[in-house]
Amino acid sequence: MTDSSKPGRLLRAPENFVDPALAQAITQDGLDQQRRGFLRKSFMAASAAVSAAAAGKAMAQVGEGDPAILNLPAYSTTLGKPVAANPYGVPSRFEANLQRRESPGLTRVSQASVAFAPLQGLFGIITPSGLHFERHHQGWQDIDPAQHRLMINGLVKQPKVYTMDDLMRLPSVSRMHFIECGANTAMEWGNVAVPTVQYSHGMLSCSEFTGVPLSVLLEDCGYDKKNGKYILAEGADGSSMTRTIDITRALDDVIVAWGMNGEMLRPENGYPLRLVVPGVQGVSWVKWLRRIKVGDQPWATKDEAVHYIDAMPDGSYRQYTSIQECKSVITTPSGGQRLLDKGFYNITGLAWSGRGKVKRVDVSVDGGRNWRTARLEGPVLNKCLTRFNIDWVWDGGPCVLQSRAIDDTGYVQPKINELRAVRGTRSIYHNNAIQSWQVAASGEVSNVQVY
Amino acid sequence: MTDSSKPGRLLRAPENFVDPALAQAITQDGLDQQRRGFLRKSFMAASAAVSAAAAGKAMAQVGEGDPAILNLPAYSTTLGKPVAANPYGVPSRFEANLQRRESPGLTRVSQASVAFAPLQGLFGIITPSGLHFERHHQGWQDIDPAQHRLMINGLVKQPKVYTMDDLMRLPSVSRMHFIECGANTAMEWGNVAVPTVQYSHGMLSCSEFTGVPLSVLLEDCGYDKKNGKYILAEGADGSSMTRTIDITRALDDVIVAWGMNGEMLRPENGYPLRLVVPGVQGVSWVKWLRRIKVGDQPWATKDEAVHYIDAMPDGSYRQYTSIQECKSVITTPSGGQRLLDKGFYNITGLAWSGRGKVKRVDVSVDGGRNWRTARLEGPVLNKCLTRFNIDWVWDGGPCVLQSRAIDDTGYVQPKINELRAVRGTRSIYHNNAIQSWQVAASGEVSNVQVY
Repeated sequence: MTDSSKPGRLLRAPENFVDPALAQAITQDGLDQQRRGFLRKSFMAASAAVSAAAAGKAMAQVGEGDPAILNLPAYSTTLGKPVAANPYGVPSRFEANLQRRESPGLTRVSQASVAFAPLQGLFGIITPSGLHFERHHQGWQDIDPAQHRLMINGLVKQPKVYTMDDLMRLPSVSRMHFIECGANTAMEWGNVAVPTVQYSHGMLSCSEFTGVPLSVLLEDCGYDKKNGKYILAEGADGSSMTRTIDITRALDDVIVAWGMNGEMLRPENGYPLRLVVPGVQGVSWVKWLRRIKVGDQPWATKDEAVHYIDAMPDGSYRQYTSIQECKSVITTPSGGQRLLDKGFYNITGLAWSGRGKVKRVDVSVDGGRNWRTARLEGPVLNKCLTRFNIDWVWDGGPCVLQSRAIDDTGYVQPKINELRAVRGTRSIYHNNAIQSWQVAASGEVSNVQVY
Repeated sequence: MTDSSKPGRLLRAPENFVDPALAQAITQDGLDQQRRGFLRKSFMAASAAVSAAAAGKAMAQVGEGDPAILNLPAYSTTLGKPVAANPYGVPSRFEANLQRRESPGLTRVSQASVAFAPLQGLFGIITPSGLHFERHHQGWQDIDPAQHRLMINGLVKQPKVYTMDDLMRLPSVSRMHFIECGANTAMEWGNVAVPTVQYSHGMLSCSEFTGVPLSVLLEDCGYDKKNGKYILAEGADGSSMTRTIDITRALDDVIVAWGMNGEMLRPENGYPLRLVVPGVQGVSWVKWLRRIKVGDQPWATKDEAVHYIDAMPDGSYRQYTSIQECKSVITTPSGGQRLLDKGFYNITGLAWSGRGKVKRVDVSVDGGRNWRTARLEGPVLNKCLTRFNIDWVWDGGPCVLQSRAIDDTGYVQPKINELRAVRGTRSIYHNNAIQSWQVAASGEVSNVQVY
């Protein structure tokens, strides 16, 4: 592997080389051969002037007598269903186990709920909307878009109320961004190594969002360019969710979004309107967005003064630490999975940075002593997940897998002990440490914390 | 609009300016004010040493007496559901009308079926997998991935059979590409102007696909570099679907894919394995892929010698015209939609080219006399959909909307009459003409063919 931009060529040769009987059974070549056989027999039968009934018998004999045809699976010999029964399609019945999951160890009531995305089973960078993580402060609601309104008020020349129709007539943009809860990987601050990447990193998703830039709306209302220093975003659910965002960011890349992965937002992700605040922790991406207020100072609301603050080792708290710093995680192999045998594997995972683009991802298979640079799948986008892949031949011995991301500001994802040296272990938020997965000689993969 | 990379600022001012009563009803400011009112009344009640029952009565009076509180929607005052009931989420109940649709005018049986994607209601470039178009030649099947096999045989040193586990251990790539049926927009060759963009252009979708490059598999099997000029791709369903692809393309960007938009392929899109042949018509993206055979000449199978051939005006047929040439369509406003009033609109649509990237999209609102250049949403990717947006102020008069795409080879999307001059009107396939939508003074939008 000298060229990291190309897939490797050093493949493990699969053990199961071609079996002639299997080849007969599963391929068109086999079918063609059988048909030729049938035609020959049919011709012989016809030339012997046998009855139509006998010709039918000959056909039955081909079916009964030829194990290759008997071996053909039903789906190769029958009519399928015309189109999907549900005009909104669903995954295969064989994928029923890949789902969002609540954590038995966390709150599971309407007052506070969370469901994690199954990162271990996902590919690429797009999170299917049906598997996007959920985090609610008073449950989710399915709001009628015809009834929904967005108000812009505060330090503006002309406060306005917009209907969804109003908003969707305005200039729209579509951009791919990750969203990560500030409390993602929270349990790892202490010594709780949760078993799977779904629970350790699953409050992370990535979508293509469509909506109107907040800057367009603020200009439309004539925001106060002298005194308007902050905006407050407010949700329409019962949680009184409100978050302060500084005006520079609000005018930069923030989107008032209705679209997610090509369709309207899902109810549990804020349908019909949510704020998209690229690079910033999920709580600021206010769901069921009903108001933007312009003001001259931060509001210090409950969800920024009491919650979502970083406990420091000296007993103090850091407020308004919104940016999700550069981070990565190997998703396969990961905790709870098992390698079936030694040989070639594709190690794959995700990297992201709230400051910009991922520049490089290194992977270690020996607990951080040696590192190789992974291939990044394109496009590598701003404040978006980036998929990495790297070849690996497992020798069957115990080892520790790690990934380390570097963003285009030069920031290097830290080790957990480096992070703890500064931030202690009392925190819940903003753990972006390197994740370690231990592979046992049995092939079992588990979460190990300190490497 | 001098800078086409920025959203416009010339917005129609929404008519419904802020209504103070509505503001009271829907915002936290209103709530805060009511709470202050309640606290004041409570304090007055307490300071008058009234009973707890009286204090309770005061609260009821605030609720009963203040229309603002009565006006608050239930979703702002109640607990929601903790997490989505279905661990695989579904769209809002208000989006039930946005679905794939079969055409009453086309075949709807298992032997040949089609369901169109609702382009008029989609955003960005990603097609939600539940709305990806369907086209089957013998219906669809939901194949057990544990039973599925891929064989590679023909002119190879070592024919092999791969399990899904074998394939998913190999180096994988993730790439976004469009897929378009060669017969998309087929009805427009004649004089049938189907009513909506769902039926005129809805055999088009775009996803992030994940899989192993076909080149990796061909090299793994030691394909014959001297005599191996073509591959045949074969599906496992009952339709005997087989398609020839030349080896240069097969070694270039073709993927043997299991992933679509982050999860496994949907059954109706080839689960667990399909071929991704970027830029080429959908029929070559063989679903339920079970075999790749290497050969020294095209196979001329039924689906390339009899079907999927272009009828020319002189009575001849063009074969192996696989590439989907540069094309675009306005998706909003489009046929069947209605503009409610004059004023500002965002015209949006999709552009794509089977030869590379979209370089530019022009939009006309006067039937092709004048053109303005639209904004392209990034990323603009190779053989992928590109979303375009452009500002428009409708004066309320009749007009004809068109889009015209140009790709990075310099190819310009033709007018329907230019295309007919060369290809006649007998064809079914490869209609990439400019689409015209007529807006009536009533605001109704309809499909008009010749402009």
